[in-house]
Amino acid sequence: MVYLYEDERLDYLLAEENLRIIQSPSVFSFSLDAVLLARFAYVPVRKGTIVDLCTGNGVVPLFLSTRSKAAITGVEIQERLWGMATRSVAYNGLENQLTMIHDDLKNAPERLGYGKFDVVTCNPPYFPTPKKEEQNLNEHYAIARHEIHCTLEDVVRVSSQLVKQGGKVALVHRPGRLLDIVTLMRKYRIEPKRLQFIYPKENKEANTILIEGIKDGQPDLKVLPPLVVYNENNEYTKEVKQILYGNE
Amino acid sequence: MVYLYEDERLDYLLAEENLRIIQSPSVFSFSLDAVLLARFAYVPVRKGTIVDLCTGNGVVPLFLSTRSKAAITGVEIQERLWGMATRSVAYNGLENQLTMIHDDLKNAPERLGYGKFDVVTCNPPYFPTPKKEEQNLNEHYAIARHEIHCTLEDVVRVSSQLVKQGGKVALVHRPGRLLDIVTLMRKYRIEPKRLQFIYPKENKEANTILIEGIKDGQPDLKVLPPLVVYNENNEYTKEVKQILYGNE
Repeated sequence: MVYLYEDERLDYLLAEENLRIIQSPSVFSFSLDAVLLARFAYVPVRKGTIVDLCTGNGVVPLFLSTRSKAAITGVEIQERLWGMATRSVAYNGLENQLTMIHDDLKNAPERLGYGKFDVVTCNPPYFPTPKKEEQNLNEHYAIARHEIHCTLEDVVRVSSQLVKQGGKVALVHRPGRLLDIVTLMRKYRIEPKRLQFIYPKENKEANTILIEGIKDGQPDLKVLPPLVVYNENNEYTKEVKQILYGNE
Repeated sequence: MVYLYEDERLDYLLAEENLRIIQSPSVFSFSLDAVLLARFAYVPVRKGTIVDLCTGNGVVPLFLSTRSKAAITGVEIQERLWGMATRSVAYNGLENQLTMIHDDLKNAPERLGYGKFDVVTCNPPYFPTPKKEEQNLNEHYAIARHEIHCTLEDVVRVSSQLVKQGGKVALVHRPGRLLDIVTLMRKYRIEPKRLQFIYPKENKEANTILIEGIKDGQPDLKVLPPLVVYNENNEYTKEVKQILYGNE
């Protein structure tokens, strides 16, 4: 039993046949980037604590719940999206593992505790705040995509405050911000350790990066195998099909 | 007519049927990395000035001479390798375009001028200096591979001193040093603009990076399409064959 508002849909979580997620074309639908982040991030299998910042409709925590028994907290500033996330958790009967919090991520360390989490994940807004007249007219999308309520530095600083020493912070972002990200990570004592580039096609520039750092880790960066999304026929590659739909 | 010492050979420069290069298995032979750097680097086609640091047997200048009419200077600290480079230049009749200098790169700005070059290329030693007993017993290889006579910071600082404003600096290195490279580049006002990862196989971590920055450039990093060296059968991929042997 679930309440759906306006144009909301109860979508399947891709390959996860037992999980459904509330989405809405006019408010928020999850992207491939969220799926890639949820697959890329290290997670403890049996126990521990994970926090997902900018959680939106809770897509990353829902995916992570299939890989980990850790307690997962999602933080979302938009009440409307937080509501969707909360109803999805209830629909899937995951209230014992997943907690969705409606708050500004900058309040998260005070509210959830400093240095308490094994893992922090975040799929943050990608774009610097444009002039008011250039912003997406849809406020929900504008907040999710532009650094209106939090900057990249807020995300990295808060992640560092939340994660325990030796814990991991995993982000998805655009290659144009790579240098800012690694500079900010080092500023806040998150040493970048794993980096993966996502290429839309084999012969195209990367358009997405996945990066994971360790709080107070030793410098030693690995660049993981490339992931190409589409083949020459504009179909998903084998690797991406596997990620999205599982074995078939 | 060319003098060859000891075990030196006069090899073809791969696809360049008109160019030969003096190599020696016991002193120095060029690597795929040098070929990739010479292909990756931006070069002015008709005129200008290029300097190649850590030039070894002059492999990068020789390759670049097929892509550019610019005056190209190579700088090499090892007299033995400088001698090979000089004789290769003479054998190919390129004395009017290529000049090989026997010197420590740290003297290059004083000797060649500050802010005079359109392009700086370098395939530097990759490894920090190990304990004396762990160094390659072959002194020529030890100097080429380990930061014995120059550190990564020396390379970036000197490159920045040599290149003109708006000029380009291109390096080949290992992914483990990526963060050091971009940090040093920004310290010396070389803004990273193009980055390419080389993967030994499709499903392996990157083992080489190509990076190009612009002196006083605007931040805007592009990550070029991935380059995979070997296919599943351990043969060179089509792309690498094309680079090494040209059209066939």
